[in-house]
Order: sequence, then structure tokens, then C-alpha cells
Amino acid sequence: MAKKRTFAVGVDYGTNSVRTLIVDTADGREVATAVFPYPSGEAGILLDPKDPNLARQNPADYIDGFFQSVEEAVNIARRDPEFAVEDVVGVGVDTTGSTPLPVDAQGMPLAMKPAFRNNLAAQAWLWKDHTSIAEAAEITEKAKKHRDGYLTKCGGTYSSEWFWSKALHCKRTAPKVFAAAAAWVECADFIPAYITGNTAPATMPRGICAAGHKAMYHEQWGGLPKKAFLKSLDPDLACLGETFNTPALPSDRVAGFLTAEVAKRVRLPAGIPVAVGALDAHLGAVGAGIKPGTLVKIIGTSTCDMMVAPVDGEFPDIPGLCGIVPGSIIPGMYGLEAGQSAVGDIFNWFAKYLAPCAYAASGDIIANLTVAAEKLRPGESGLVALDWNNGNRTILVDALLSGLLVGQTLHTTAPEIYRALVEATAFGALTIINRVEEYGVKVKEVVNCGGIAEKSPMVMQIYADVCNRPMKISRSAQTCALGATIFGTVVGGAHRDVPAAQRAMTGVKSLVYRPNKKAAKVYADLYTIYRQLHDAFGVPGSKVPLDRAMKNLIALRHRVRHEG
Amino acid sequence: MAKKRTFAVGVDYGTNSVRTLIVDTADGREVATAVFPYPSGEAGILLDPKDPNLARQNPADYIDGFFQSVEEAVNIARRDPEFAVEDVVGVGVDTTGSTPLPVDAQGMPLAMKPAFRNNLAAQAWLWKDHTSIAEAAEITEKAKKHRDGYLTKCGGTYSSEWFWSKALHCKRTAPKVFAAAAAWVECADFIPAYITGNTAPATMPRGICAAGHKAMYHEQWGGLPKKAFLKSLDPDLACLGETFNTPALPSDRVAGFLTAEVAKRVRLPAGIPVAVGALDAHLGAVGAGIKPGTLVKIIGTSTCDMMVAPVDGEFPDIPGLCGIVPGSIIPGMYGLEAGQSAVGDIFNWFAKYLAPCAYAASGDIIANLTVAAEKLRPGESGLVALDWNNGNRTILVDALLSGLLVGQTLHTTAPEIYRALVEATAFGALTIINRVEEYGVKVKEVVNCGGIAEKSPMVMQIYADVCNRPMKISRSAQTCALGATIFGTVVGGAHRDVPAAQRAMTGVKSLVYRPNKKAAKVYADLYTIYRQLHDAFGVPGSKVPLDRAMKNLIALRHRVRHEG
Repeated sequence: MAKKRTFAVGVDYGTNSVRTLIVDTADGREVATAVFPYPSGEAGILLDPKDPNLARQNPADYIDGFFQSVEEAVNIARRDPEFAVEDVVGVGVDTTGSTPLPVDAQGMPLAMKPAFRNNLAAQAWLWKDHTSIAEAAEITEKAKKHRDGYLTKCGGTYSSEWFWSKALHCKRTAPKVFAAAAAWVECADFIPAYITGNTAPATMPRGICAAGHKAMYHEQWGGLPKKAFLKSLDPDLACLGETFNTPALPSDRVAGFLTAEVAKRVRLPAGIPVAVGALDAHLGAVGAGIKPGTLVKIIGTSTCDMMVAPVDGEFPDIPGLCGIVPGSIIPGMYGLEAGQSAVGDIFNWFAKYLAPCAYAASGDIIANLTVAAEKLRPGESGLVALDWNNGNRTILVDALLSGLLVGQTLHTTAPEIYRALVEATAFGALTIINRVEEYGVKVKEVVNCGGIAEKSPMVMQIYADVCNRPMKISRSAQTCALGATIFGTVVGGAHRDVPAAQRAMTGVKSLVYRPNKKAAKVYADLYTIYRQLHDAFGVPGSKVPLDRAMKNLIALRHRVRHEG
Repeated sequence: MAKKRTFAVGVDYGTNSVRTLIVDTADGREVATAVFPYPSGEAGILLDPKDPNLARQNPADYIDGFFQSVEEAVNIARRDPEFAVEDVVGVGVDTTGSTPLPVDAQGMPLAMKPAFRNNLAAQAWLWKDHTSIAEAAEITEKAKKHRDGYLTKCGGTYSSEWFWSKALHCKRTAPKVFAAAAAWVECADFIPAYITGNTAPATMPRGICAAGHKAMYHEQWGGLPKKAFLKSLDPDLACLGETFNTPALPSDRVAGFLTAEVAKRVRLPAGIPVAVGALDAHLGAVGAGIKPGTLVKIIGTSTCDMMVAPVDGEFPDIPGLCGIVPGSIIPGMYGLEAGQSAVGDIFNWFAKYLAPCAYAASGDIIANLTVAAEKLRPGESGLVALDWNNGNRTILVDALLSGLLVGQTLHTTAPEIYRALVEATAFGALTIINRVEEYGVKVKEVVNCGGIAEKSPMVMQIYADVCNRPMKISRSAQTCALGATIFGTVVGGAHRDVPAAQRAMTGVKSLVYRPNKKAAKVYADLYTIYRQLHDAFGVPGSKVPLDRAMKNLIALRHRVRHEG
């Protein structure tokens, strides 16, 4: 008799919408997908016209989004004759992060209480909220001096995007909201807690992924930073730390079971196990088949670069990486997170603000620019750019950086600049690969996923040529949600562990972008110049001579144009 | 009885057309103007699709242009009841340069002989022809080592735009043309010679302006470089030097008198004195009222910056200046020439290649960008650029440089970049002012002329704010042609010398752009960053720390945006 089919549900909370995916646990086949765009604010984000750094979300959108997208996906799945709701073995959840929200003693979001409904400080503080720059600098300053080395696992700099910065900024700028909050919880923890009926901050399960990468949680110093350290930032942060007393867990652990009330709303049986929540990029890496030696790049408006490494003995602290956290991606392995602050965002910026009519008058601007840019040969424009329009996340961890373009003549065209910007992001990608390899973590393959990996062959070919490595593409176009289903699968017992589930449910496309030798050679020369600019403008205290940079670009341009 | 009215004719050979101006010598009043666009090539320039560095002109266009534009101007003037051809006292001529042309033993252009009519090497080599980069480097190399210091009067670097580079390149790449040429003469010398019937190379008058600024002619070493030096470049260059045996003359000297044949064609009496020719920018400076302490900026696609200084004792060699030549602007004074390789060309480049539809769809793109750019406050974009899209003429004298823009975010707009480019050219202008003042030449006033000075109040206000000096505008909109009339006036005896003629015939507009204190303060900070980038990328062997540059731009942006 054939083995009985089973299914898993993955719920993926992105920046603008939540997506539910239902897959067959045998092979990852997608049975149903449903997307719910957050109705509040602009594309789901609450903004403040007076402060471009502010980005919040309405927690009610998360709850509505769970009910609506899961119910819709279940309804679609039920049309499949092989699917039955009784065969759903588990639910996995991923969310953006650090996206903390202030909650009351029962764990309900303050934003859902009438008194705070319209208070921006009481909402969820979306990952890309940058209001807490001053607090991040202060935390970095104090943590750097601390003998426990709280920053050694997160690249040496604490970010304004992260948990403690945000809570501290709220305390200082919206003290009433801060005082009303019994605790602050990550969105990734709130959703599993809510659907399993266990939202009380003191007992709700917390994921290692958000805690480790965003809240300086590490076994090495016994969990969260010590009370005295938090107190030195603000006595109330020490109290906030007290509300998080349970050990943080990897996502192959059960957070709880679907309550009858929630299950009924989404037309699933009650009692289905729900995995501990994790961050979207990390589960995306799982959905893209991450394993030791594989770098997964999730390339969208920004980039997340993920790796895992076996936990055997000591693992080096790698300067500039956003995080190295045991169990944050695959349980039992170190999870490494790096990233670029802007990739697609830079392409979109150029298309929106600087594309002339010839490319912008009709059709898709990016597509029009790409048609022209892909006809150019590496080096022939004489341009090189830095990919820092939104700062540099890895390896410099510095938001106070900006874009740079060098090599313009009186004949430089828009497609040439566009291509230089694509190349700049590729050089940024190579810089990350080089950094992890310098610290002994070998990158044996690169698997790409996300919108740009799916849609832009030119970008992927440039990445292959610049990195001088084949670029593979994840088979699934929704790797984050697929990663969430894998944890649903594992907590539901359909596979014995994450690697086994990945082997069955993930893979790469047969199309692989392979490096062109001639292009790779030119890009090696261009990268030398990129790296000089990178170090000169980005590394404190550096004095890199740049007096040959323009001449070298002109010589390279001349060589490429005349060698043909 | 009132003094009898007299008139002078100025003939100004520009890059795309020749302009004749007839003025009243009493006050510079414009009696007639006529323009003749060169009919050959593209806008008067012969191009080679295979070589973007090549730019030549058909000498026949110069001759036709003289006849047609002077005749038309005379016809217009005759409608003026106060004008009579008998009252024309003199003719002055200015041309672009270095624009040398190969001629036969009678001084006729080779290009006008059937055998060479279609040979690009036999035409006039326009000032912006850059085919001779290799020869310029070789001449620089050898001249630097020579004890006579042949480069001390031209900024330390010999240019590919100049006389000897072009002749040597012709010898090497078109030896038949070179062999057929009895001599090479500057356009500025050829025109007066032609209209006065004295074209034989051995006897034709040569102007000090072109010879001094473009052919390393200087009294200090007895005229042209010594024969042994020219021989070390190529024995044929030594022979070429022999064809130029007369002392070079300033333009208040008579080159000759209008021949009967030429006079008849243009409806003027024969025998009118013609001044020795000079370069357009130099006579433009005269037409703008240059005197000791006055910097005249001719701002068009590129910029020429001119000053004069009394000849009393030694004058310092100023590193990076294109030229310091006695008598090249005003007889009896040193003429100083500096310049920026691209100014309007950079604005036009941006408008043509990078202006989005919002600014380019209708109307004048530059005007549309200007409307938006002038609303911005100094520093608020966080951008700074280098004005080197066409290399740097002064003070680095380096064609192998290129453009640079730093400070881009994901919100940077086209008008912000446009303004940054305007500011970059202003910083370049300030760098020139600072350099001459560092060497003891005080800039007491700045008089601007040329298309951009006439048409762009925003640009002129930014120049005033960046340089923290008032910017005056020349009263005449055609200063080069007016300068030529002044020399016609002087050789015709209507004024006793150039300063006297200038006092009567030139002036500035009542509108003066005065620096805004607050803007000047911000620009002083921005200039510090510009200068760091300038030195880091442009000065050989420099090691300027740039690790604070982006942070300083962001801090300045923040300060400006929040101080309001």
C-alpha cells in the first residue's frame, strides 16, 4: 500500500502582505497559495509624513491576514482530490524581523486596545523602521566595551532595526506607550503564540532566530544580555528582559497546537502542531535547500545572504556579519546571516528618478534599461559604482554611507549607469562571499531566490561573471513560505528532521548561470577598483590611494573597446 | 564740431560659425551683426565615425565665412544713417585655437587643393581634436626634462589640443600630407594673412597669443623651443620650426591692409588696417573689459578663465595654468589663461542622457531642471560631484580624469543631481581662483560672459555663493567679436591703446549676483569635501583620507534640513 499523502501549511508574513502555502510533504508540490495584502497604511505600512525613518504596521492586519489567507488556501486545496484537511500534519510560520510589538500582560497587542489604536508607537515596529539610530549607536557603544562581547555574534554593530533599539526609542519618545506595555514580543513569536492560544509573555515560546540575530541572545552569555548591562542602558530595559525568561527555541520545536477557535475560522482540524516561528529570510534559506557549503541569496529590494555550518567545536566570529546564531536556520547548525541594504531598491531608484524618456515613456522601465544594458560589455562604460544608496549592511555595518558613481564622461548613457549599478551590487555580493571564506567558511555553491533571481537573467549572469561562480536558482518561487511548510512538516512528523524534509521538498532549477571567462577577467580588474573605493570611503581610518582609479578605469575601457 | 564717428569690424571664428560685428568706436554700440554657420561636416566639424577624438574643419569654410558674414554685416550697417564704409578704421580677427592647418609654400591650405580635398589630415585641426594624446604625452615627457623649462608657461603639461602634438601626429599617421605641407599655420594667423594678401609662411605675421599659449613660444628661450629640442621629437619638426622665423606679435600691431580684391567682395574700401589675429577667448576677455585684478570667465560648453597682470619684474610660474604669455591678451601685460574642460557640456550631458520624462517631455530640459533645482537649498541633497566628465584643464591639466558623484540615496532626484553638477563646476571655478591667488595674483572682481552667464541666473547665483564673491556680467553678449573690434579700433587709431578703447567700448550690466552669506557658509563646508575628492582622485601620489566624506555629507544634509 502506498504511503499516505500528508500536507503542511506555511504562513509567510512579508513586508506588504501575508502568503499561505500548502504543500505535499512528499515532494514539496504546491497545492494551494493565497495572499492577503495588509489593508492598513500605504501597502501595509503606517508612515509618518514628518519622519521618513518611521515604518510601523497594524497588528490587526497580521491576525486578519492569518485567517483570510489560510482559509483561502485551504479552500483552494480542497479542490485537489488528493488533499484532505485531516492530512495536514503541521503549520510553520515566518515573519519579517526584527518587528517587535508592545503587548499587555495577556500578550495582546496594545495597538488593538481603543486607547492606543491610533498611536503609532503602539503598533508593530516594522524591520525597516529607522527611528532608533541614536539608541542603536548608544547600545553599540556600551556593548562594545562589555567583556561578554555581545556584538561578536552580530557583526560588531547593533542596528537601529533591532529589538532593543526600538524598545529604548519608544521608552524615550513615547513613554506612555512604553509604560502601558507589559512586554515587547517579536512578530515571529506573536503569531504562533496567538494561533496556539498561548500569548502570555512569561510563558510563550520564543524563537532562537529573532532572539539570536536581533536581541543579542546567545548561550555563550546565558541568553539575553545580563541584567546589569540592560540596566546600564535603561532600568526599564532590564525589566523588559525579565519578561523573556524561557530558553529560545529552534523552529523544529512545537510552539503549541492550533486552538479550536482558530482552526474553525480557517477550516482546519483543531490540534495541528505549530512550529516555533522564525524570520522570513532564514526560512527562505531552508526553502531554497540550504546546507553546509551552500550560500542562499534572497535577492529582492535588499538582499539576505544565508549560510549554515555544522556545530563542531568553536566557530569563528566573522567581523561584519549581521549574525551567527546556533539553530537559527537549521537546528543543530550555526546560522549565518549577511546582507546588502539595497539591491532591487537601487535599480528601482534609478528607473524611477533618472531613466530618460527613451526608456521610461512606455513599457516596463527596468525591462527597457535591461535590453540596452545587456548589450554592453563588461568594462566598456568605464564606470564603477558603490552599492551604498541605503548604507552598507555587510561587511561594513554602517548606515551612514551613501552611493557613489565614478567614470562618467560626456557620453555616458543611462543603460551604462544602470549596468554599473547592477555590477556594484554584484561586487557587494562578492565582498560578502570573500569575507566568509576569509574566515574559513567555504562557499561551495550559490543558490539564488527572490524576485530578481527569478526575473532578471542579466543580473544573474553579471553575478556569475563577477563572482566567477555558477549561480543556481531555487526551484520554488516562494521559498520563505516553503521553508515554513518544512518546519510544519517536521513538527508534524512527516520527515524526521529539516535536512530530510529539504531533500524531499526543495531543489534548484536546471537553468544555471555559468561564469564567462573573459567577462570574469575584466570584472576581476573592476573589482580591484571597487574594493579600493569600498575601503577608502567605508573603512574608518583607511588611507587608500585613489589617484590611479580614474586612469585605471579609462585604461580598462580602452582595452575592452579595442580588444573587441 | 562734433568728433567724426568711426567704426571697427570684428570677425570672430567660433567652433560652429563665424560672426562679424561692426561697432561704433566711441562707445561700442553694435551697428551690425551677421553670422555664417560653417557648411561642412556636422555643425561645421568634420568627424570620423571610427575615432571620436577626431575634429577637423574645412578651411574653405573660413574664407567663405569671411566674405559672407562681413558683406552681410556691412549691408546691415549701411542701413544705419550714421554709418559709412569710409569711416571703418580697422578690422580685428579672433579664432579658435590651437587650430593649425597645413599649407603649401604660398600659404594656401592643402585642403583646398584637389589632391587633398577629401583627406581629413589635410584640413584644419580644430582645437578640440584629441587624436594626438600619445604625441602630447611624449612632448610633455621630453619638455619636462629640458633645462629651458618649456612647460613652465603652460601649466606643466603639453596638451593634445596644441600645435606641436597635432603636427607630430600628422607626420606619424598621414606622412604624405605632412610631406606636402610647406608649413603649419594657426587659423588665427591664416585669416589676417589671407585678407591682407600675405600668406607666405616665412613672412606672414604670427600672433603671440596662439604661439605663446599653444606652441611653447616665449622670449625667455628666444621664441619657439630650440631646434635641438624639436629635432629630438622629430627632425621634421625642427624644419617646421624654421618656417616660423619672425617674432610673434601682439594684436595691437598691424598684420597688413585689406587687399582690393577682398575689400571689394565685402563692400569695404581697400587698405583698411587689419590687426594681428588672436584666440577667441583672449579677445573675449578684452571685450569683457579685462584689466589687472579682473578675472573674466567665458562660460559656455567649457570655460576659459582669463586674467592680465602688469609686466613689472618677474611673474611667477603658476602650476596648472594653461598659459602665462606676455602680450597675449593686452599688449604690455602678461596674459593668463586657465579653464575648465566642460561646464555647459556637463549640464547638456545630464539633460540629454539622464533627465527623466517629467523634465524632458516638453519644453527646454535645462530650463525645466533649473526650475526644480533652484528651489533646493545648498547642502540639502547630500550630494557632491567632481566636474571632470571631460577631464580637468586647470589646475590638474589631466585629460585622463572622469566624473564622480557621491552621496546618492534611494530618494535622490534628477534636479538634485543637476544642481550638484552646477555646484561642481562652481567648485572648479573656485579652485582656479584660489590657485592664482595662492601665487600672489589678486582677483578683485569677476566678470562673466558667454551663453551660460547670459542665460542662467541660477548658475551665476551658485557661482557667487560658492566663490563668495559678486559675479558681474559683461554688458555685451558677443564679447569675442567685440574684443576683435577693439583691436580693429586700435590699429585704426581711433583709440590710443587697448585700455583706452576698453574704457570707451566695454562695461558690465547693472545686475550683479551677490553672495548669500548663509549659502556661502554651507558651500565652504561642501568645498572642503570637493577638495578632498579633487586631491584624492586627481593629484598623483596623494593619499587623502575619505573615510569621513560620506558621513560629513550626511551630517551637512541633516543640519541644513533641520536648521531650515
